[in-house]
Amino acid sequence: MESPVELAAELILRLAVILIAAKLGGEFAQRVLRIPALLGELGAGIAIGPFALGGIAIGSFGPFFEIPEIIEVVDGAIRHTEAILPVAPEFFFLAQLAAVLLLFEAGLETNRAQFIKYARPATAVAMGGVILPFGLGVVATLMFGFADTDSIIGFLPALFVGTAMTATSVGITARVLADMNKLHVPEGVTVLGAAVVDDVLGLLILTVVIGINETGEVSAGSIVFVALKAIGFWLGLTIVGTLLSNYISRGVTWFKTTGAVLGLALGIAFLAAGVAELFGLAMIIGSYSIGLALSSTELRHRIEEPMRTVNQFVVPVFFVVIGMQVDIPAIIEGALLFGVVLSVLAIVSKLLGAGVPALFVGFNRVGSWRIALGMLPRGEVALIVAGIGLGAGVIGSEIFGVVIMMTLVTTVLAPLLLVPAFAKGGSGLRKGEPDATLAPERPDEPVAGSGSPGDAG
Amino acid sequence: MESPVELAAELILRLAVILIAAKLGGEFAQRVLRIPALLGELGAGIAIGPFALGGIAIGSFGPFFEIPEIIEVVDGAIRHTEAILPVAPEFFFLAQLAAVLLLFEAGLETNRAQFIKYARPATAVAMGGVILPFGLGVVATLMFGFADTDSIIGFLPALFVGTAMTATSVGITARVLADMNKLHVPEGVTVLGAAVVDDVLGLLILTVVIGINETGEVSAGSIVFVALKAIGFWLGLTIVGTLLSNYISRGVTWFKTTGAVLGLALGIAFLAAGVAELFGLAMIIGSYSIGLALSSTELRHRIEEPMRTVNQFVVPVFFVVIGMQVDIPAIIEGALLFGVVLSVLAIVSKLLGAGVPALFVGFNRVGSWRIALGMLPRGEVALIVAGIGLGAGVIGSEIFGVVIMMTLVTTVLAPLLLVPAFAKGGSGLRKGEPDATLAPERPDEPVAGSGSPGDAG
Repeated sequence: MESPVELAAELILRLAVILIAAKLGGEFAQRVLRIPALLGELGAGIAIGPFALGGIAIGSFGPFFEIPEIIEVVDGAIRHTEAILPVAPEFFFLAQLAAVLLLFEAGLETNRAQFIKYARPATAVAMGGVILPFGLGVVATLMFGFADTDSIIGFLPALFVGTAMTATSVGITARVLADMNKLHVPEGVTVLGAAVVDDVLGLLILTVVIGINETGEVSAGSIVFVALKAIGFWLGLTIVGTLLSNYISRGVTWFKTTGAVLGLALGIAFLAAGVAELFGLAMIIGSYSIGLALSSTELRHRIEEPMRTVNQFVVPVFFVVIGMQVDIPAIIEGALLFGVVLSVLAIVSKLLGAGVPALFVGFNRVGSWRIALGMLPRGEVALIVAGIGLGAGVIGSEIFGVVIMMTLVTTVLAPLLLVPAFAKGGSGLRKGEPDATLAPERPDEPVAGSGSPGDAG
Repeated sequence: MESPVELAAELILRLAVILIAAKLGGEFAQRVLRIPALLGELGAGIAIGPFALGGIAIGSFGPFFEIPEIIEVVDGAIRHTEAILPVAPEFFFLAQLAAVLLLFEAGLETNRAQFIKYARPATAVAMGGVILPFGLGVVATLMFGFADTDSIIGFLPALFVGTAMTATSVGITARVLADMNKLHVPEGVTVLGAAVVDDVLGLLILTVVIGINETGEVSAGSIVFVALKAIGFWLGLTIVGTLLSNYISRGVTWFKTTGAVLGLALGIAFLAAGVAELFGLAMIIGSYSIGLALSSTELRHRIEEPMRTVNQFVVPVFFVVIGMQVDIPAIIEGALLFGVVLSVLAIVSKLLGAGVPALFVGFNRVGSWRIALGMLPRGEVALIVAGIGLGAGVIGSEIFGVVIMMTLVTTVLAPLLLVPAFAKGGSGLRKGEPDATLAPERPDEPVAGSGSPGDAG
């Protein structure tokens, strides 16, 4: 057996390859292909992952990125199984850290006054972007014979695919918008807000689906209880966090030891993420909400720059690890046609489901198109849903592959379309909307309370 | 079984507690106790670890920091054992990352011209600081009856204790010196250099001891081969790295995507660490050497500041994780007297072994005292040696506890004595030494080649 140090050394060697591949891929994408760097990082992940180059054995050394094996004891018998996720737990952990920190940064850099102003459109966009994809995902899974309506257990795979379809990976969109300096325009704020509401709704569905799977039945009372708990926690975290934000800021900035302010801020982000998960929400909802709560404090100014530096280290790991989990042969062998159809439905349902409501809450066609595209990438959220489904034994490897394919297609497509949609310029707001005067190009000073346009200019 | 996401969420919650405890402990140590912050971080680790507060079950939730369990299959039978290290592998991995990055930063911030100038004293200090502790460790283990000379197998525990005694954790010293802005004075450069040579010698001994354990015998030829491979690799990495440093710097700084320069530099540091381990050296030797090689390049200036920020996030995790591994009850029950004697011998042998040679290579008594104290902390290196010994079945839990106690005592003591030793001021060099004119207070510009005092002033 290898010692912990030897294992750590092997992982660190692999982490070196992940980082270097990410940067080579990102630079190639941006300079040569002229597409966002994160697509290069995703591509690098697919290329070096266990299903491509990383899976090829190098002499006696074995494959460089092996699929981890889990030794379990089931009914007294030893069972060797492939792990649910095809990457080492340490890298999955780092990737999760990165997702949490990326959303913390996104929350921190959000203009909170604008967020509250856009809560109504965000909710409308999220509702549409959840209901339509969920419905089409359920129907498609039934039509392709991967689920049936004979029993609640036979119906579960359809519910899982539907849940994965509802996801919005705000991580991809946030990075594209951040690179273009568009996080704070009305469309950006709406997408980030809608992604939060979307996650709450999607995780709510997931919680219920997992509950059905575990008990084999479902009572209306238990669904209501779970739903109230999740929404209550999220609202509570956001409201209490906002009310306490100045006290938190003063408390943290009281610390004088080197690195204490950054360390404590990261600790608070991780705490919010971990507690959110305990309450049945996604971790990223916790870190985004607390980041948002702290977005108009002195603390934000102290940690904004160091946070970006830390994220420059961990976020590439996140995108490469996402790419490494893509098993292209399994998709081709398993259910290619279902995959293609589901991918098309994923695009259409999200564009219509999120875009049409946007037209009714103050955005013109340009703005609605931007918002719909921003909601498109399923990213890590759908992968996580698929992983849970596979791990719980509800979906098989074909459906898993199909969900990953759908995720990949939407995640690759969104930034490709987002960049020209935003680059074209022009307001996304309907003429005559009072908000049209607000859209600031670079609101370095957070707009607190008053919301007067002069503050943001 | 928990899903990967649930596991990640639990770890992130624990990471939050680690970070917040580190910063509370560090602030308390620095502001109230007026001792270095890292001691507060170590203390916080002991307090929240699985052997103290973290081990207390919280209702049905169980202990917050549980000792991980390993399920192994031995001869077809299932065996549940406590893991070698009492912390989750993900935290151990993060701590190892931190150690690698801390030493990369230390190497990067070293004045290379000075390092080469001090290679001779560093080697002398390291030789004395290895031979005397090793010898006294072997003798003490034999005298307390934890090893015998009847067979090579019975003698192995003594060799393991001796090896742990030789270690120098430059991490602790480097942070104290960095906080006091003394990394670049002659004593600082000598200690960092001696710690590298010390690691090479210590790991050489460890490699040989493990080899004896695995084969049950040892041939002179195999020792020579292993030794040549390790020394050859280290010299090769340092020399080739230095020769190529400007090409590496130019290659990395050619990248334009956001965060690419930092990401690639970290990748190179991890690569050097991982490859060093493959060649039988400690990972930190690899990252320190490549940092040193890059210390007089343009790249250094680009990444010095971001590196510090990244380390503000990961290094506290390292110190807390070290603290979490200290099992005080086991030491008290197991072999307290042996522990006390070994701790005293560890202090005396390192002070004499490293301090006396320093007197003969250009330092006065003040300088020799500073260098001897800098070599005192065994830190993570001895813990790693002890972990390998326990994992290989060579040493039992009593000796493991004793080595940890010795490590803790030397690691706590060193910074307490280092701060006043350096704060007192005054040159540590013998009068008339030509180097005495060199000692720069803040050489922001690296002294390249010429080494003229004017460059550094």
